[in-house]
Amino acid sequence: MRVGCAAGDGDEEMLNGFTAPRSLLGAAALVPSPPWHFAGDVLAVEFWNDPDVSVDALPAGVELDKESPGRSVALFTDYQFTAQNNEYLDPARYQCRSFSVLLDAIWRGTRIAWCAYCYVDNDAALMRGWIQGYPRKLGTIHQTRTFATASVASAPLVNGARFSACMSAHGRLLVQARVTLREKAERLAGLLDRRIVGRRYFPRLCAGMHDKPAVDELVRCISNHLLITNIWVGESEINFPEAYGEELELLGPLKVGRGYRFSFSHSVTDVEVLADLTVQQSRG
Amino acid sequence: MRVGCAAGDGDEEMLNGFTAPRSLLGAAALVPSPPWHFAGDVLAVEFWNDPDVSVDALPAGVELDKESPGRSVALFTDYQFTAQNNEYLDPARYQCRSFSVLLDAIWRGTRIAWCAYCYVDNDAALMRGWIQGYPRKLGTIHQTRTFATASVASAPLVNGARFSACMSAHGRLLVQARVTLREKAERLAGLLDRRIVGRRYFPRLCAGMHDKPAVDELVRCISNHLLITNIWVGESEINFPEAYGEELELLGPLKVGRGYRFSFSHSVTDVEVLADLTVQQSRG
Amino acid sequence: MRVGCAAGDGDEEMLNGFTAPRSLLGAAALVPSPPWHFAGDVLAVEFWNDPDVSVDALPAGVELDKESPGRSVALFTDYQFTAQNNEYLDPARYQCRSFSVLLDAIWRGTRIAWCAYCYVDNDAALMRGWIQGYPRKLGTIHQTRTFATASVASAPLVNGARFSACMSAHGRLLVQARVTLREKAERLAGLLDRRIVGRRYFPRLCAGMHDKPAVDELVRCISNHLLITNIWVGESEINFPEAYGEELELLGPLKVGRGYRFSFSHSVTDVEVLADLTVQQSRG
Amino acid sequence: MRVGCAAGDGDEEMLNGFTAPRSLLGAAALVPSPPWHFAGDVLAVEFWNDPDVSVDALPAGVELDKESPGRSVALFTDYQFTAQNNEYLDPARYQCRSFSVLLDAIWRGTRIAWCAYCYVDNDAALMRGWIQGYPRKLGTIHQTRTFATASVASAPLVNGARFSACMSAHGRLLVQARVTLREKAERLAGLLDRRIVGRRYFPRLCAGMHDKPAVDELVRCISNHLLITNIWVGESEINFPEAYGEELELLGPLKVGRGYRFSFSHSVTDVEVLADLTVQQSRG
Repeated sequence: MRVGCAAGDGDEEMLNGFTAPRSLLGAAALVPSPPWHFAGDVLAVEFWNDPDVSVDALPAGVELDKESPGRSVALFTDYQFTAQNNEYLDPARYQCRSFSVLLDAIWRGTRIAWCAYCYVDNDAALMRGWIQGYPRKLGTIHQTRTFATASVASAPLVNGARFSACMSAHGRLLVQARVTLREKAERLAGLLDRRIVGRRYFPRLCAGMHDKPAVDELVRCISNHLLITNIWVGESEINFPEAYGEELELLGPLKVGRGYRFSFSHSVTDVEVLADLTVQQSRG
Repeated sequence: MRVGCAAGDGDEEMLNGFTAPRSLLGAAALVPSPPWHFAGDVLAVEFWNDPDVSVDALPAGVELDKESPGRSVALFTDYQFTAQNNEYLDPARYQCRSFSVLLDAIWRGTRIAWCAYCYVDNDAALMRGWIQGYPRKLGTIHQTRTFATASVASAPLVNGARFSACMSAHGRLLVQARVTLREKAERLAGLLDRRIVGRRYFPRLCAGMHDKPAVDELVRCISNHLLITNIWVGESEINFPEAYGEELELLGPLKVGRGYRFSFSHSVTDVEVLADLTVQQSRG
Repeated sequence: MRVGCAAGDGDEEMLNGFTAPRSLLGAAALVPSPPWHFAGDVLAVEFWNDPDVSVDALPAGVELDKESPGRSVALFTDYQFTAQNNEYLDPARYQCRSFSVLLDAIWRGTRIAWCAYCYVDNDAALMRGWIQGYPRKLGTIHQTRTFATASVASAPLVNGARFSACMSAHGRLLVQARVTLREKAERLAGLLDRRIVGRRYFPRLCAGMHDKPAVDELVRCISNHLLITNIWVGESEINFPEAYGEELELLGPLKVGRGYRFSFSHSVTDVEVLADLTVQQSRG
Repeated sequence: MRVGCAAGDGDEEMLNGFTAPRSLLGAAALVPSPPWHFAGDVLAVEFWNDPDVSVDALPAGVELDKESPGRSVALFTDYQFTAQNNEYLDPARYQCRSFSVLLDAIWRGTRIAWCAYCYVDNDAALMRGWIQGYPRKLGTIHQTRTFATASVASAPLVNGARFSACMSAHGRLLVQARVTLREKAERLAGLLDRRIVGRRYFPRLCAGMHDKPAVDELVRCISNHLLITNIWVGESEINFPEAYGEELELLGPLKVGRGYRFSFSHSVTDVEVLADLTVQQSRG
C-alpha cells in the first residue's frame, strides 16, 4: 500500500485519462484523448438576425462583421465519432447529434464564425465541446435522413426533396428548420469558409471568485482533413421559439437565406488560443 | 351542445384517428392510418439457438422448421417512417430504431419467420407493432452508421469494415452484435425470404377474464414494394446478456452464421389473419 | 363470430404472460398480471375549457355535464407501481410519471370523468393504460417534489408553497401548471369524486377494416382501496401551448380554479365494460 | 503567467452567466451562480473493496485510510436543486438523480472521503459537478421511493421495508443495490462524517499539452446548513457489473456493510483548494 505525501513532492500521478474521471486504465475518462475523428451529415440554414441584438452575444474583442451584419448559420449535425479505440464501434456512447449557431464576426481584422450556442445529445460530446470552446448544453436533435432505396419515406437527394430538423432541451422546442433541395453544388459557398472561434470557460467556485474563471480563453478550432461531399443547396425556413431559461430566440431570424445539405468528415487534435482572458490568481 | 343517447342508438361517432387517442381532427392519434412507408438501414446476424429451448417460444400451431432447427435472425434497423402527412418531416416523432428476433418456423406446412421479440425506441412504433402483431417493448437501439466521406469515423461499405449494434431496455444491455463486411452481394440469401408471422394480442381486464384476451390472432405481415440495395455479407458475432425481467437470453446463440448489412424500403397497408385464437365472449 | 378452426386443433398454449410478448416463463410480458398497486403524489389543477369545443372530444353516448360544462381536471402523477413480483424493487422499469386530462361528463345519467388524454413515461404504463381504457402516449412529465428537511429547495407542504409541473412529448411542451398551496384539507372536494371512464380501442389492420377496430369499448375503471392523504388546496395556473401533432390545446383553459396537492394509493384488478362499440366481423 | 495583451484592450465584457454559454441576460448559462441549495432522499450502502486495487484510484497525495482500508460508500440520491431564481419550479431542468462512490482516504493526515466516481442525469448537474470537483458522467439512476399512503406499492419507512437502486450509463447496468431497513436512527454513524474531496480537472487541447491540464486542483467541498432526517439503518447488498468503457467494477465489493436511507438538505457556495496541481504554462 502506498505511503502518501503532498502533491508536488515528487509523488507520481498513477491515474490516466484525458479528462475526469481519471482512472487506473484511463478507460473511464468521459472524453478519450485526441486525435478525434468525425464523419456525418449536416443540414444547415443561413439567416440574418438583428445585429443590434446579436452584437450583444459577442465577448469583448469580437465584433460583428460589418460586411454581413447579423448573418448567421444554424447547423444540425448527425455524426459518428472515433478516437484511437474504435469508438465508432460503441455507437450507444459515441454517435452524436448536435445543433450550433455561428455568427459572422471579426477577430482582430480576421473573418471568423463565432459559436454563440451549441447543443449535443451525449455527455462525451458535451464535455469535448467545453474543451474545444463550444458552450454546449444537452439537447435532443433530429433531422430527416436520406436512405438509399426509393420510397416516399427515403428523402432522396433530388431537386424538390424536403428535409426538416429540430432541437429541444428539457422538453422545450428551441429550433425548427426546413430545407428544400434545389441543386447539387460542387463547393460549399457561404458556409464553413470562416474559422470557428469559441470560448473555453471554466469557473472558479471559491468564495469571492465566482466571476473570476479559472479558464477563460478565446480559441480558434483547428480542423484537419476536412472533406465535404454530396452538397445540395436550396431554400430554407427556420424559427427559434421563445423558451424559459434560454436566449436562443434573441438570435432568431429577421430573414432567411439558403439551405444546405451535405456530408463531411474531419479530424481535431489542436486548438489555437487567440486570447487568454483569464485573470490569474495566486493558487494553492 | 349535444344531447347524448346510448352508443349504438344511431348516435354518430364524431371522433377520428386510426388509434387512440381518438380526437376531433384525428391528429392526436398515436399511430396515423395506413398505408405506412418505411426506408432504412439494417444490420443483421444469422445464428442458431437451442431448438429444445426455442421451441417453447412458439405459440400453439407454430412449429420449428425441422430443416433448420433453431436458426434465427437478429435484425437491427434504423428507419424513417411516413404515412400520408409527411411524417418523415417530423423526425423527432417518427424516426425509429428497432431490434427483432425472427425464428425459422413452419405454419401449416409453410415456411415462416416467427417474430419472437421486438423492441423499438418510440411510442408510435411500439403501438404500430402491436397492431401488426409484433410484440414490441421499448428499447434503446444503436448501430454503427456509414457516412459518405472517407474517414476512420465513416465505416465505409468495403471489405473488412466493421459495424456494431446493441440494444438495451431500462438500463440493461440485452444484445450486442458485430458484423465484419466481406463482399457485396446481388441478393439477400437466407434473410427475409420467409413471411414474418406474429401475434396480435390485446388482453381483457374484466375480472375473471385476464387470460381471455379480446384479440388473439396469428397474423402474416403483408409488405409491398420491398426494395433492398447495398447488400453486404460477412462474418458476425452476437450475444444476449442475461437480464432480469427479460427472456431474450433463452434464445441466445449456440452458433453464429453470416452477418448482413443492407438498405431497404417497403410499405404496409394490410395484414393477413392466419388464425383467430380469440375465445369469444358475450359483450356489452 | 369466428369462422374456421382453432390453431393446431387441440394444441395447447405453452406461453405465459398477461400481454405480449408471451413467453415460456411469462417474465417477458410488457405488463404483469393484475392486481396492480399504485402509490404516488399528485399535483392537480381544476379548469374550465370551452364546452363548444370540448364536447367534440367525447365519443358517441358520452355528454358533457350540463351542471359543470367544460369543467376539467389536469392531473400530474409521480407514482410507484407493483404487481405480484415486487416490481417496486425494479424502479427503472416500474416507476412512472403521468399526465391526464379528465372532463366532467355524463354517461346514461351518471356523472363520470372522461379521460380525454393521458401521457406516461414508460412502456409498461403505456400499454397498461391502453388495456384500462386510457389513451396513452409517451410524454416526459415532471413536478416539483417535497422533501423532508427544511431548505429553500424542499418545497414544504405549507401555506404559500409553490409547485410546478410540466409535460412534453417529442420535445414539444404540451402543458405547464403551477399550484400555490393555501390550506390543508380533510377531504378532496371536487376531485376524483366521479368514476373515470375511458375507451379501450385496438384497431384492425386488415385491408378494408382500418375503421372497424377489433376492440372498441367504453369502460369504467374500478379502483380498490383508494387512500388519499396530505391534501392541500390552493390557487393554480395552467396552460396548454399549441403543438404540431397534438390536440391538447383544444381543451385549454378559459378559466382556472383550485389547485391540489396530495398523496394517494389504490389497486386495480378489474374494469367494467359500459358499452361494447365493436362492430363484429366474421373472423377466420 | 500570461503573456500578450488583454482581448480588446479595455473592452468591457457585456456577457453574463456563471458558466458558458455566457449571454446578454445570463439566463442561458448551463449552471446558475451559487449559492446552490439541495434537498433530497438518499439510499446508501457501505462496502469494502480491495485496497490493493482501490489505492490505484487515488491521485498523488491522497492515501487510503489505513484504519479502514478499502471502506467505501455508494450513494444514490434523488434531489431537488435551486439557486436564486426558483429553479425548483423548473423540475424538468433541475431535478436530479445521482450516484457516487466515496472512498475512505487521508489527505495530509486528515480523514476524507475521496469521490472516485459520480454519475448524474442532467447537464446542469454534470457541469456543476466538474466545477465542484466531482468527476461526473451522465447516467440513469433510480431508487425505490417511499410514499405517504399505506400500500404494497408505498415502500414505507418501517422495519423490514426494502429499497432498491440502480444506475446505468449508455444502456449498460453499472450498479445495483438493495437496502432492507431495520431501525430508525438518531444520527448518521459512519456516513458523511468525512469531508468529501474531489478533483477539478479541465484539460488543454493545444497540441503538445494534452497531458497538461489548464485546471488540476484537489478540492474540499464546503457544505453549509446540512440537515439530515428520517434516518433508517439496515442490511444491504450491492454489486458492480463489469461494463466496457467503465472502471467502476474495479472498486466493487469484497464485503458489504450497513445500508442507509435518509433525507437531507444543504447549501454550497464555496470550495477549498487543497492543492493546485496545475502545471503553469505561459499563455497568450
